[in-house]
Amino acid sequence: MMVIMKSGYSQEEMDQIIQRLDEVGLKGHQIVGVERTVIAVVGSIYPELGDELETMDGVASTVRISSPYKLAGRETKPEATVIKVGNVEIGSGKTVFMAGPCAVENEDQMMETAKAVKEAGAHVLRGGAFKPRTSPYSFRGLGVEGLRLLSQAGKATGMPVITEVMSVREVDVVAEYSDILQIGTRNAQNFMLLEEAGRTGKPVLLKRGLASQIEDWVLAAEYILNTGNPNVMLCERGIRTFETATRNTMDINAVALIKEISHLPLIADPSHGTGKWSLVKPVALASIVAGADGVIIEVHPNPDHALSDGAQSLNFKRFRELIEASRVIADAVDRPLWPAAAEAAPA
Amino acid sequence: MMVIMKSGYSQEEMDQIIQRLDEVGLKGHQIVGVERTVIAVVGSIYPELGDELETMDGVASTVRISSPYKLAGRETKPEATVIKVGNVEIGSGKTVFMAGPCAVENEDQMMETAKAVKEAGAHVLRGGAFKPRTSPYSFRGLGVEGLRLLSQAGKATGMPVITEVMSVREVDVVAEYSDILQIGTRNAQNFMLLEEAGRTGKPVLLKRGLASQIEDWVLAAEYILNTGNPNVMLCERGIRTFETATRNTMDINAVALIKEISHLPLIADPSHGTGKWSLVKPVALASIVAGADGVIIEVHPNPDHALSDGAQSLNFKRFRELIEASRVIADAVDRPLWPAAAEAAPA
Amino acid sequence: MMVIMKSGYSQEEMDQIIQRLDEVGLKGHQIVGVERTVIAVVGSIYPELGDELETMDGVASTVRISSPYKLAGRETKPEATVIKVGNVEIGSGKTVFMAGPCAVENEDQMMETAKAVKEAGAHVLRGGAFKPRTSPYSFRGLGVEGLRLLSQAGKATGMPVITEVMSVREVDVVAEYSDILQIGTRNAQNFMLLEEAGRTGKPVLLKRGLASQIEDWVLAAEYILNTGNPNVMLCERGIRTFETATRNTMDINAVALIKEISHLPLIADPSHGTGKWSLVKPVALASIVAGADGVIIEVHPNPDHALSDGAQSLNFKRFRELIEASRVIADAVDRPLWPAAAEAAPA
Amino acid sequence: MMVIMKSGYSQEEMDQIIQRLDEVGLKGHQIVGVERTVIAVVGSIYPELGDELETMDGVASTVRISSPYKLAGRETKPEATVIKVGNVEIGSGKTVFMAGPCAVENEDQMMETAKAVKEAGAHVLRGGAFKPRTSPYSFRGLGVEGLRLLSQAGKATGMPVITEVMSVREVDVVAEYSDILQIGTRNAQNFMLLEEAGRTGKPVLLKRGLASQIEDWVLAAEYILNTGNPNVMLCERGIRTFETATRNTMDINAVALIKEISHLPLIADPSHGTGKWSLVKPVALASIVAGADGVIIEVHPNPDHALSDGAQSLNFKRFRELIEASRVIADAVDRPLWPAAAEAAPA
Repeated sequence: MMVIMKSGYSQEEMDQIIQRLDEVGLKGHQIVGVERTVIAVVGSIYPELGDELETMDGVASTVRISSPYKLAGRETKPEATVIKVGNVEIGSGKTVFMAGPCAVENEDQMMETAKAVKEAGAHVLRGGAFKPRTSPYSFRGLGVEGLRLLSQAGKATGMPVITEVMSVREVDVVAEYSDILQIGTRNAQNFMLLEEAGRTGKPVLLKRGLASQIEDWVLAAEYILNTGNPNVMLCERGIRTFETATRNTMDINAVALIKEISHLPLIADPSHGTGKWSLVKPVALASIVAGADGVIIEVHPNPDHALSDGAQSLNFKRFRELIEASRVIADAVDRPLWPAAAEAAPA
Repeated sequence: MMVIMKSGYSQEEMDQIIQRLDEVGLKGHQIVGVERTVIAVVGSIYPELGDELETMDGVASTVRISSPYKLAGRETKPEATVIKVGNVEIGSGKTVFMAGPCAVENEDQMMETAKAVKEAGAHVLRGGAFKPRTSPYSFRGLGVEGLRLLSQAGKATGMPVITEVMSVREVDVVAEYSDILQIGTRNAQNFMLLEEAGRTGKPVLLKRGLASQIEDWVLAAEYILNTGNPNVMLCERGIRTFETATRNTMDINAVALIKEISHLPLIADPSHGTGKWSLVKPVALASIVAGADGVIIEVHPNPDHALSDGAQSLNFKRFRELIEASRVIADAVDRPLWPAAAEAAPA
Repeated sequence: MMVIMKSGYSQEEMDQIIQRLDEVGLKGHQIVGVERTVIAVVGSIYPELGDELETMDGVASTVRISSPYKLAGRETKPEATVIKVGNVEIGSGKTVFMAGPCAVENEDQMMETAKAVKEAGAHVLRGGAFKPRTSPYSFRGLGVEGLRLLSQAGKATGMPVITEVMSVREVDVVAEYSDILQIGTRNAQNFMLLEEAGRTGKPVLLKRGLASQIEDWVLAAEYILNTGNPNVMLCERGIRTFETATRNTMDINAVALIKEISHLPLIADPSHGTGKWSLVKPVALASIVAGADGVIIEVHPNPDHALSDGAQSLNFKRFRELIEASRVIADAVDRPLWPAAAEAAPA
Repeated sequence: MMVIMKSGYSQEEMDQIIQRLDEVGLKGHQIVGVERTVIAVVGSIYPELGDELETMDGVASTVRISSPYKLAGRETKPEATVIKVGNVEIGSGKTVFMAGPCAVENEDQMMETAKAVKEAGAHVLRGGAFKPRTSPYSFRGLGVEGLRLLSQAGKATGMPVITEVMSVREVDVVAEYSDILQIGTRNAQNFMLLEEAGRTGKPVLLKRGLASQIEDWVLAAEYILNTGNPNVMLCERGIRTFETATRNTMDINAVALIKEISHLPLIADPSHGTGKWSLVKPVALASIVAGADGVIIEVHPNPDHALSDGAQSLNFKRFRELIEASRVIADAVDRPLWPAAAEAAPA
């Protein structure tokens, strides 16, 4: 850590800072520059140190130097993490498709969608049973019945399933039915939920918060990793910006940067990232090319009758077109699609 | 709701939309403009309708017309909500001060701070027992022991207390010790927690999410109100923007706008809203003038030794100066300080 | 336009609004909904109308229905605009590369870079002569001498050139030396400059403003189109958000959306969009896949000695790798690279 | 400057950096920490150095330590800058009101408004002659005729006047008619305009850019100061964020922070900062309390007939109420209103 002194600090102020560092077992080296004096702090920095020092007289600001990640960074583990779910490997260098309806609505819708996405080439089945909705007056999901229908459709088609868990109270029941636990964007810094999900040992897909900086997001992953569960995927699903023409702003830089700084798999969610079905295909392809290990797509038999997020859902035909276009692109960047579920595990 | 048609839509597309509206019991009136045709939808609109219609052919976009609020809006309840906590009334037209350390650290720190803020004129005692921290390696609070110390300090000084609840699992124990339940910014859309907190019947202070639009925030309050608990305060604590010179951007417009659109009390949090102790005083005063019913301030005996948020905490002297300056300002805008706890309930 | 009335408006307020519309030659149709009453305004809406009506008593808000674009939208001109510059066509369905140093520094640097990017396969040569710099104490470009060196290098290698014009005063001299005029992000709403650049008749590349919504950006293009100059390219170069891990946030959604709503060519600038050379390649590829008609890349013989934007510049080897990877991707999406300048026009 | 090395850098990489620093006359001191090694660079750092070093192998990032301001900072000039315009002093510790219509529309409107705002207590008369408008199809001002009408109204009422200059070409004519030159938010980084405006020697009011960080904004002021013109006022007028309930987000933190870091006067513009007339009063008062040296307010005889920005303009009655409320507040914070123009210079 670097402590940047105000111009015109007093010797007494400097002494107090050096003494304070000494109290907590750290060493401070003074560096006198042309305009500014800086103290380089050496030793085991703890997270609160910066805040503490910034309240001391004479201090202009502090700058953290060391990486805040202990487990998620490439520096500590250069090789990519590969997560096995059923017959599918995520992060292996092959591109994975997760698809299904935003919300599980009933048995027919779920089963019909499962068959359609599997046939098109999807590997993992998604479907929401517990739905976080901005308004309490919106449809909030079927709950456990939704979990049951999702799991049943997954088994019938030979696909592992993924669904969101919204509260520590539902962690156990979701883990019972689902192969992957999804943490949604509104719970991206619900730290108790992160830890509970981590403790199940099941793979966790962690969506980025609407206002999470990349550092916040990877630190949230550390909460899960820190429980001893290494199976964490990061999911870029768009951030909130001033742009209103799209529902969110898909951060394509983050897709590329995560693959550079972290060994964890990165899944792109262009359905939420754009909020507009016509943009899902170009942005899904772009994400694959930028480095995503997979994509997660909302698919619905009749998007105009969907109980949730219809505007960003693909119908079956459009999903087939997306997967065909992705195949070409994924081959071109040498990260071909994972063998289709159809081939790997017949229903 | 208005459905805006694409230029060049076909009659068949129009017919299908009108029919779809008919299916769900709504009436569509066509309005042909110079450039665009619009369908005005009349009837009981449900939240998903816009999304559904936007996937239909011929539709350019939809615009919701009716207010999304059923309980929090001034339109349904013009008179201000006043919340009674102990001897203090929040939202009464008198200005309330909540103060205390970011985190409860030990008995001495808590008791010393409680006495100091009470003497200075504070009405409600704050203190964090469960701390949401961006990094899992930061100090995360004393938990139930922290609740106990906070409650004890509140009783000793005759002040009601407020503390954060981070998970549905802790709702009961927090409600046992605390007079007000605080929902933090990272849980601002943790809807299950909102409902659980609401069900306790205790007053709830709901912080705005880092990326919550004012509408999201008031809808989150609806989750609590919808449980039958009318005692909700909204807390503006800064939003995340591109500005990095301050930790967050205090949205002073929101302070004024909330008082215009909602009957709920508004508490300003300039400690988090600025992240810099030297800005706490001017921004606290500004918030009172803009319409806040109260402010919540981080105060610590030795900010440079605080285990959390030292950089934005006031020491006792600075807190006394703040409250003296606030007294003058609050009188000037005719929303004087609530009588000091000292006068209302001797320790 | 729709005028949304406050609940509880009076008949007198309604009458005044209808009368006001009548004064300006518009017709207002009342639509009484379950919760709200709305006035649909029919006729030639002018841009200020919304603001005017929103100040009238009884009005809650107004919503514009018609498209704000007269010239840039797909609705008025469905076929793509193709811009010819020298032997290169931009927007033709083939992918174009513009490359060169951020700033022209001297004859050797400019000529060496021109040769290298041409050999690698670039089509248009870029180079900054007038440099907008955040600090007045940074290097601000060689001015007219820079224009001369750029033009000379373009001629020597048979490539058309592009450079930024920062002020109405330099429009003529820049137009004398450069084949394309670039409007930078800081001048994205410098409307007088837009019009002056438009009046030269030369192709104009219009960068998106740091805080420009897509609508602002396309309306800025209307300023140029409105001078009678149809040769406008839009350039996505990243927007400013809360994320600080990258210099800007490349808005990949905007790349796809612009191609949907406008007939103008779209050029992606991953150098500024990321601010980090290691991200330039993945984000350039992603942009091509998402629909960009071309990319513009900063290339420098020795990025670590560059006088401007070194951190985001590619050296020659990395640029060659980028263009080879792009070739594969561009073929895969059936928008192959435009024939190399080398083939089209030997130096 | 601090150069932070990647973990696992090689000695050769370190040597090259030290040598590079040596080439440009700087000294690098190595500091080996527990996790990271850092090079402290001592000497006259130039603005491009960080970018250059970040492209070198082995470098993770760089951190600038010294202040980027040479002229605008409190560190170099602790005492407040006071700007005299006519009989009015801005930055003197007394609060100043600037008021008038968004756009000059005709002689009657201008004169009537001038008389009304003067009578209410305003000190400086504003009025737009050259109007930057997002759409080229909006009213763009009367140009020189507008300048003439504004100047005439100022003289008739004894108030100095302020108006926007949009282009280097109009600097002279605007300076001929206006006492203060205003640089608008869209030209906040139009550096050539900043310098031209500076060279007139007239006071300049510099609005913050929609996406300007505080540092960008103060550096833009340096462009003006660097021409030898010390008479620069900074104007906070709201930034662009994700919030859409208000037109912009007034950054009240910035008002307080600017007064801490800079000696320049700060003017608040709650009309643009909120975009909603009903919020102008509370946010104006808040700005004064937070430290603003003055406010600038849009006032129009009939906001619902205004040719520009009607929704955020006050009518005469509301302006009088604002100024009366401000008087009380300004007295309470001991920065009373500057003596009314009426008293200082009878018309």
